[in-house]
Amino acid sequence: MSPLTAMYRESAQAPEVVARQLAENAISAVRIGGLLRQLNPRVVITCARGSSDHAATYAKYLIETYTKTITSSAAPSVASVYDASPDMRGTLFIAISQSGRSPDLLAAVAGARERGAYVLALCNSTDAPLAAAADALLPLWAGPEASVAATKTFIASLSALAQLLASWTQSRELVNAVSRAPEELARAWACDWSAAVPLFASASNLFVIGRGFGLGVAQEAALKLKETCAIHAEAFSAAEVKHGPMTLVREGFPVLMLSQSDETRAGLQSLAEEFAGRRARVATAGFAIPEGLALPAIAAHPVIEPLLLIQSFYALANAVALARGLNPDAPPHLNKVTETV
Amino acid sequence: MSPLTAMYRESAQAPEVVARQLAENAISAVRIGGLLRQLNPRVVITCARGSSDHAATYAKYLIETYTKTITSSAAPSVASVYDASPDMRGTLFIAISQSGRSPDLLAAVAGARERGAYVLALCNSTDAPLAAAADALLPLWAGPEASVAATKTFIASLSALAQLLASWTQSRELVNAVSRAPEELARAWACDWSAAVPLFASASNLFVIGRGFGLGVAQEAALKLKETCAIHAEAFSAAEVKHGPMTLVREGFPVLMLSQSDETRAGLQSLAEEFAGRRARVATAGFAIPEGLALPAIAAHPVIEPLLLIQSFYALANAVALARGLNPDAPPHLNKVTETV
Repeated sequence: MSPLTAMYRESAQAPEVVARQLAENAISAVRIGGLLRQLNPRVVITCARGSSDHAATYAKYLIETYTKTITSSAAPSVASVYDASPDMRGTLFIAISQSGRSPDLLAAVAGARERGAYVLALCNSTDAPLAAAADALLPLWAGPEASVAATKTFIASLSALAQLLASWTQSRELVNAVSRAPEELARAWACDWSAAVPLFASASNLFVIGRGFGLGVAQEAALKLKETCAIHAEAFSAAEVKHGPMTLVREGFPVLMLSQSDETRAGLQSLAEEFAGRRARVATAGFAIPEGLALPAIAAHPVIEPLLLIQSFYALANAVALARGLNPDAPPHLNKVTETV
Repeated sequence: MSPLTAMYRESAQAPEVVARQLAENAISAVRIGGLLRQLNPRVVITCARGSSDHAATYAKYLIETYTKTITSSAAPSVASVYDASPDMRGTLFIAISQSGRSPDLLAAVAGARERGAYVLALCNSTDAPLAAAADALLPLWAGPEASVAATKTFIASLSALAQLLASWTQSRELVNAVSRAPEELARAWACDWSAAVPLFASASNLFVIGRGFGLGVAQEAALKLKETCAIHAEAFSAAEVKHGPMTLVREGFPVLMLSQSDETRAGLQSLAEEFAGRRARVATAGFAIPEGLALPAIAAHPVIEPLLLIQSFYALANAVALARGLNPDAPPHLNKVTETV
C-alpha cells in the first residue's frame, strides 16, 4: 500500500504538533488554569460538532473526574434554533472547533457570553471568528490540515484539554503525564496495526467500543471509519452497547475495542470475551483475549492512552481506506469546513 | 403479515397508558412542579440507559427550552467506575428506568442524593429499588411489558416528562398540549406506514434523522430497528450528520426523517432534498419532498408530535421485523432487564 496520503502525513505530525503546543501554550494554560480555580464554575458546558465533539466527550470525563464539576454537552439546536437562553453566570463554556467558523457554534458562543459564561475556545485557526469571540483562547498549533479527515487537529484538541486540566487542578501527576505525551505519541505511531487491515477492509458494519476516558476516541475512530473507509461504524460505551445494540453482534460481526489502563478495562475485557464467544471478529487494543486479534498499544497514564490509541488507529484507517480503493483525504460529499445553522 | 406480537399489542396500548398516567399523576406532577419552581435548580442532570436515555434526550430539549435550565446527561461511568463525586447541591437529578434495577443507575442515584441532589425517578415498576431510592417518583403506569422491545414504556416516559414540564412551568399551552396527547396517540396508531415496509425490509444499514424535540425519538427509532429488525440503524441530528456521517448516504442508502412542526423543519427538509438528489431512498414523516416516500403524520403541538411519530413508527418496526422473519419480542442476546455496572 502507498501510505502517502495527506491523512498519513498529517497523522505522523501529531507528536511534534503536541510538543510545540505544550511549549507554546504553557504560560496561557497556567494563566487560564488559575482563572478557572478562581471562577470555580458551577457547571461546564462544551459546544462542538463532529470530531471536536468527540474531544468534548473526552473533556467531560476529564473535568468531571478531576475537578468534580458537572459537564454538559450543549445542544446547539436549543441556542441556534429554539432561541432558548439559560442563565450562564458562573459557568465555563468550552467551544472546540478546528476551523472556528460554523455559524451555529458562533451563535452559541455569542449567546453564552451575553448570558454571563466565561468562554474558552480551542481552535486551530487563530484568526478565526471563534478566536475573536472568546474570553480566552488555547490555539491548537497543529498547522495546516489538508485532509478532510481531521487527525492531528483532533489529537491536538485532546492534548490541549489534558494540559488545561493539569494546570487547572495543579496535579503533579497530570503535569507529568502530559509532558510525556509527545514521546509516547511517536511510539504509538510506530505501533503496527496492519494485521487488522483484512478484518476492516472486508467490513461493511462495525462497532467501536470504549468507556470513560476512552469513549471519545472510540467515537472518533467510528467517525473516521465512516469518512475515510465508507464503513458504517458506530461507537458505544461498554455499558450502553448492552442495552440493545449488541444484538447486532453475531458471528463474523467486527468489533474494535479501545481500552486505556484503568477501572474500565475489566468490563471491556469481559465484553470482548462475550462477543468472541458468539464468534464475532474482535480486535482489541490495550488488552488481549484468546480468540481476538490483539493490537499493540503503548502503556502510559490512562488520561494519555486514548491519544495513543487513536494515533495508532489513524495509520490503520488510512491503510484500510487504500485497501478499499478509497482516497481518505477526499470523502464524497464532505468539505473540510462544515457550516451548520 | 401477522401483527399479533407482544410488541404490537403493547404499542397499541400507549394511548390508554398515557390517558391513565396523566390522570393518576396529575396531583403528583403539580406538587413536584411546585417543588421544582422553589428549588429553581442550577442544573438538571439526567441519568438513564438505552431507550430511557433517549427519553432523557427529549427531557434535555424540553427543560432547556421551557425552563432555560442547563441539562446534562450523566456519565454513569464517572459515578460507578471512576468514583468521582461532584457537588450536586441545588441540582435536580432525573433518573429514568423502566425496571429501576440496574446497579450503575442505582449507584449514581445514591451518590447524587448523598451529594445534595433532589432525585426524581421516572419508573414503571413502583416496587423497584429506584422508586425507594428517590426523593420523588413519577410512575409510568404502563403496566406489564413482555416484549424485550420497550414501546409503551418509552412513550410513557415522554408523556410523564411533558406533564412534568407543564406543571413546572405552569404553561397553559403545555397543559393543553399534554391533555390532547392520548387522543392524538390513538390517531397516530391508525396512521399507516406500511408503504415503507419494502424499503426497510431490504435494508442492512439506515440513518434516522431528527432534531431538537424530535432527536430523542430518532435515537429510539434507530435502536428499535437494531433490536427488532437486525438493521444497523444510527440516529443523527440534522446538523451533526453533516459533520462526517453523511458521506455514507449514497444511491440507495435508506434514510428516515422524523420531523415535528417547529423551527427545525426547514433544515430537515433541505437535507432530505440533498439526500434525494444523491438518489438515496428517503422516507419522511411530517413533511414531503417530491422524490421521497411521505409517511402520514398527525399535526399537533411540536412537543407532542415526537410521541406521535414514534407511535406510528412502532407498527412499522413490528411489520418490518416480521417481513424479515424475525420475532421482535425476543431479539438475540438481549434480556428485558439489562444490569450494567
